[in-house]
Amino acid sequence: MIIKTPTHYFLVSGASEGFTSLNAFDGALLRAGIGDTNIVKMSSIVPPRCQLISPVPLPPGSLVPTAYASITSDVPGQIIASAVAVALPKEPHFPGLIMEYSGRGSKAEIEEMVRQMALEGMKLRKREIKELTSMAVEHRVQTVGATLAAVVLWDREETG
Amino acid sequence: MIIKTPTHYFLVSGASEGFTSLNAFDGALLRAGIGDTNIVKMSSIVPPRCQLISPVPLPPGSLVPTAYASITSDVPGQIIASAVAVALPKEPHFPGLIMEYSGRGSKAEIEEMVRQMALEGMKLRKREIKELTSMAVEHRVQTVGATLAAVVLWDREETG
Amino acid sequence: MIIKTPTHYFLVSGASEGFTSLNAFDGALLRAGIGDTNIVKMSSIVPPRCQLISPVPLPPGSLVPTAYASITSDVPGQIIASAVAVALPKEPHFPGLIMEYSGRGSKAEIEEMVRQMALEGMKLRKREIKELTSMAVEHRVQTVGATLAAVVLWDREETG
Repeated sequence: MIIKTPTHYFLVSGASEGFTSLNAFDGALLRAGIGDTNIVKMSSIVPPRCQLISPVPLPPGSLVPTAYASITSDVPGQIIASAVAVALPKEPHFPGLIMEYSGRGSKAEIEEMVRQMALEGMKLRKREIKELTSMAVEHRVQTVGATLAAVVLWDREETG
Repeated sequence: MIIKTPTHYFLVSGASEGFTSLNAFDGALLRAGIGDTNIVKMSSIVPPRCQLISPVPLPPGSLVPTAYASITSDVPGQIIASAVAVALPKEPHFPGLIMEYSGRGSKAEIEEMVRQMALEGMKLRKREIKELTSMAVEHRVQTVGATLAAVVLWDREETG
Repeated sequence: MIIKTPTHYFLVSGASEGFTSLNAFDGALLRAGIGDTNIVKMSSIVPPRCQLISPVPLPPGSLVPTAYASITSDVPGQIIASAVAVALPKEPHFPGLIMEYSGRGSKAEIEEMVRQMALEGMKLRKREIKELTSMAVEHRVQTVGATLAAVVLWDREETG
């Protein structure tokens, strides 16, 4: 194994305005509680027996494997939203599936879509679903806005 | 070193239809045999003396450094393709080079392009090539389709 | 912790022409001195007490967490530029912030923008700035060109 496999995960989301797209994204990460870490984007599996926990403070500057959706917009008045869904299988020795989706639209629309995406992904794997969790956030753009929804993979023992 | 340097690598590819672009990408990962892992995208070097192996099953949910090309399309009838090439140097203490390419076009066209890209990259490094390996996949889009070609870096000892 | 937190960092930049966009990007990485490593993109924090060093040679093929901006262009004559900025806080137990920006425009314009982005990001965090460092590069496109500016996170002890 090149990188340690995570043992815990949690869902976060946030939205923000910013000076530029990247500043708005940075603000959304801060609102989500992960703005002072180094997010490493990954595709999108919950390891078997990985445990859902409440968000924990992460060591500043730590490298954090994260599945996320984000969108930025500079169209004033536009509604943007990001969502993530986690589908866990009935059989605990199988992995779970994370899906991410962002778009123009309400939180409800984007969250419904990402939940459907997770159901489709589990159907493709022929795995029965024990539980489907999701989180979403929407934002009305003022000047430059961003939304972010993320599943953070972590190792609880190390966070104290 | 922040992350362990890989000792083995293998090439995979896959194509799929899906409910959304991300579902099609997920399906292509599954067909490629890496759909239940957490792919971390990286630029694109084979460490010196890293060994080519046949694809091995990876632990579900593990974090896997991968160089890949992928493309999605929602234009019915369109042919899309993805390819990767690995150029290894004559001198075994030098690293090899991975190139990735996706586009509209046939497997043959896209694979020829990525091989040329790898040759150009080695020329830029003034390294003589011992071996040039490549893999490609094409797909005719029905509704929403994706192709993926990838070089997976790994550590064989850990996979049993 | 899933991945070790870096202890040192350095800034690099480069520009190149290339056979394709990816070859130009590869050339820019080579000019920057990190072309034979596996760059893993991350968002963009300097861990507390992480030390700025001069660029060091990295082990070929090693996995290197990096915050970077890059742009490619195939419009002959166009000026493109990439820049990164690092804002460090007065309080050494807080993390620093990295911002990245690329665009059409001169090195001076793009660097000024990225510095402003870093100032805004620290203002959002309500952290006083001790030091603001930046690096930028520009390139006039001939056929296909790329620029890259990067902050490389590393662990000096391991590089000898």
